[in-house]
Amino acid sequence: MSSPFILSPELTAEAAKLIPYTAFIGLQCGESNGHPLFALPYKRENIGNIFLPALHGGMLGGFIESCAVLFLYRQAGLAELPKMIDLSLDYLRSGKPETTYARCALTRQGSRIANVAVEAWQSDPAKPIVVARCHFQMPAAQ
Amino acid sequence: MSSPFILSPELTAEAAKLIPYTAFIGLQCGESNGHPLFALPYKRENIGNIFLPALHGGMLGGFIESCAVLFLYRQAGLAELPKMIDLSLDYLRSGKPETTYARCALTRQGSRIANVAVEAWQSDPAKPIVVARCHFQMPAAQ
Repeated sequence: MSSPFILSPELTAEAAKLIPYTAFIGLQCGESNGHPLFALPYKRENIGNIFLPALHGGMLGGFIESCAVLFLYRQAGLAELPKMIDLSLDYLRSGKPETTYARCALTRQGSRIANVAVEAWQSDPAKPIVVARCHFQMPAAQ
Repeated sequence: MSSPFILSPELTAEAAKLIPYTAFIGLQCGESNGHPLFALPYKRENIGNIFLPALHGGMLGGFIESCAVLFLYRQAGLAELPKMIDLSLDYLRSGKPETTYARCALTRQGSRIANVAVEAWQSDPAKPIVVARCHFQMPAAQ
């Protein structure tokens, strides 16, 4: 694991308060080399394909969307959560039964619309398992 | 609710066996007027935005993806689950804290790739909250 993940219990607790779903799936907020990083430890409930076995793609989508929302909320210093307009996910590799990490990038931030790109990987950051892009509608009053 | 949902405990149990994640989120399989229909009863853990409040978009994405996989698996009589290649979600309305329904359509079924369209709604089937399309790689041996 070449990106050491440093867990932030405070940010993780804040995420659970803002987005109860993040506590449900076990999403962790933290950082790596000063950049926000998210982690999703493995749980058996997250298996989507028992034949491979592989993590559930929609589950990974939920994790990724949560990361993008939290990233934008904090990066842009918002007072409320932005609304998602659309989400596109490309599944590049099967998610193994192990911890998944995700990092986000703010591709574009306007006053009304923001675009966030997300990459998720497991043991090797150079081998993403899912890449995604999301559009958000920014809250009206900043 | 103009589409009466008739729950199938057998299909729901089969889904939970194939995709443990479906049991985790509480996905129900059933039918309406002879066509497969899926339901996701409301749970507080599924809230993604406490300000609205609204269901979590990624959670809905996970529900929708599961519906598409199960639909294709049964419709095409597959022996194992198809692999998802990509998933695009358009969020049209906020998901209220109530039961969500989803119906699927097989847009294209080839020997290697299948395309499934999904519509999800809550109280009114004419007012979808999310529409999605997914590409799947079909299992090699049929």
